[in-house]
Amino acid sequence: MENQVALGIDIGGTNTVYGLVTKEGQILYHHEIPTEGFNPAIGLIKRIESRIQEILEKDSQLKLSGIGVGAPNGNHFTGMIQDPPNLSWGNVDIVNLFKDKFRSDVVLTNDANAAALGEKYYGSAKEMNDFIVITLGTGLGSGIFSGGNLLYGYDGFAGEMGHMPIEHNGRRCNCGNRGCLEAYASASGIKRTIKSFLKDNPDDALLQKLNSNSLDGFLIDSEYDKGNPMAKKIYSFTGDKLGQGLAQAATLLSPEAFIFYGGFSNAGNRILDSAKISMDQHLINGQAGHIELMRSGLPQGQAGILGAASLIWSSM
Amino acid sequence: MENQVALGIDIGGTNTVYGLVTKEGQILYHHEIPTEGFNPAIGLIKRIESRIQEILEKDSQLKLSGIGVGAPNGNHFTGMIQDPPNLSWGNVDIVNLFKDKFRSDVVLTNDANAAALGEKYYGSAKEMNDFIVITLGTGLGSGIFSGGNLLYGYDGFAGEMGHMPIEHNGRRCNCGNRGCLEAYASASGIKRTIKSFLKDNPDDALLQKLNSNSLDGFLIDSEYDKGNPMAKKIYSFTGDKLGQGLAQAATLLSPEAFIFYGGFSNAGNRILDSAKISMDQHLINGQAGHIELMRSGLPQGQAGILGAASLIWSSM
Repeated sequence: MENQVALGIDIGGTNTVYGLVTKEGQILYHHEIPTEGFNPAIGLIKRIESRIQEILEKDSQLKLSGIGVGAPNGNHFTGMIQDPPNLSWGNVDIVNLFKDKFRSDVVLTNDANAAALGEKYYGSAKEMNDFIVITLGTGLGSGIFSGGNLLYGYDGFAGEMGHMPIEHNGRRCNCGNRGCLEAYASASGIKRTIKSFLKDNPDDALLQKLNSNSLDGFLIDSEYDKGNPMAKKIYSFTGDKLGQGLAQAATLLSPEAFIFYGGFSNAGNRILDSAKISMDQHLINGQAGHIELMRSGLPQGQAGILGAASLIWSSM
Repeated sequence: MENQVALGIDIGGTNTVYGLVTKEGQILYHHEIPTEGFNPAIGLIKRIESRIQEILEKDSQLKLSGIGVGAPNGNHFTGMIQDPPNLSWGNVDIVNLFKDKFRSDVVLTNDANAAALGEKYYGSAKEMNDFIVITLGTGLGSGIFSGGNLLYGYDGFAGEMGHMPIEHNGRRCNCGNRGCLEAYASASGIKRTIKSFLKDNPDDALLQKLNSNSLDGFLIDSEYDKGNPMAKKIYSFTGDKLGQGLAQAATLLSPEAFIFYGGFSNAGNRILDSAKISMDQHLINGQAGHIELMRSGLPQGQAGILGAASLIWSSM
């Protein structure tokens, strides 16, 4: 019997995960490869194509219905990836590059929107119409469902919650502004917090250990669990800022829940507990206490593939 | 020939405007009466009902298709007006009160959503799918269209943009929080600005004149037009704060335009010019310069009636 599958691709700054997904959300095959963002995008596409063609040739029952792509700065309307952070691609017409190789339908969205679609169709948000998925990694992204629809905005760039200003004249952000949520509540934001705390506490052993190029989230987590007061301080500061941003978004959108996804969401309640307190403090009276903060219901790395694949099923 | 009309009602803190509206947006009859919010809501309903019945009896061609109501804190999902500001009604089941009197379909939304619907169906936003209407009066309300849909959120309370925090530890707001946009960018916010400026400039003649219970917006406008530096300072301060709030909302929702409605929007570019500069400063690079600020395309008082009436046409 013929088995229709979509190819879901989640392009990340470091690695790219892709997989063949049935309409029911079963991942028949998946693979993770380095994105190699220092090389042109076509290299990545060729590597994916040769592997997928091989699989499709081996199993003649599999029929490719289309390709869904989630990528940083991926624009659903234009089909372009526009100057993605951590990739030296500039502006790439990724949809047409994939179409040329695969002769198949190709739909693009950004990585956070793909994660939100994944949660809606296959994860924690199946029964929800109003929720916001927040991807916590190097940066902070968001995908917004309201009234059962994913919001794109006029130009396809809705959901830039990481760049909502939460501090007037706060930390300078890569985007050129000051005080963006992402400059506090993300792996790169925590690194800056560590550097700033180190100035006031130059002898703190944990801060000294953490003050390196890559952020060791597991170390903070384990020190937090042992009761280390500096680990608690790092996460309560981060959660407080995150909660301010959540309150801003909730005041506009009144979601049922925020769902957290991405590497740094593994800190879980260590951050989310203080984020919840801060969010509730900043909400108007009626809303406080009603909005849930929860972690993704999908295994790490799968929401992106599933969400990208669902772009095909929802467009059919 | 039978002429189908909807009764559109815009309930305000001081006055209520209602009218009979055709599907094409023609207002066949409209009337403004005091809301008398110190009396129970049923009194207002009875006054509207007796007038409308009279008109319907006189013109047997008119057929009432339904009643759309826009009201402060009106909840589309529950049909309740919940503890409205400036009205001593507590929680009122307004939909059922109207149904009992009129034996007709009744649909409720809040006043800012009604204004947004009016702009979408009959005003400046006919060709837009992504825009935010901001009602500037005693307070600041907003109605959000995204992807062609009015956003209600999980509980019907989406769009509380007036209560987005824009200043950490800023002015205390009626809602219980600090630094809400409404505490700066609204008639009541400007009154507070005047009081605060007066402390530093106790001899300023304009500030002395303005420091009374009701805000004289026309006086600020005319002094602004004459080049009075204090009038300019009041509006540039207000516009700067408003722009911060617009940037926050735009970062999440990426609208094509913000459309301003309500008494205090008459200040027009006197405030919107500095709001635009401030908004663009706070937006991420790609968005700055692309979002329009414009005034309502509907006569004062009509967007509310038209929008409330369109609740009936869009639900049919």
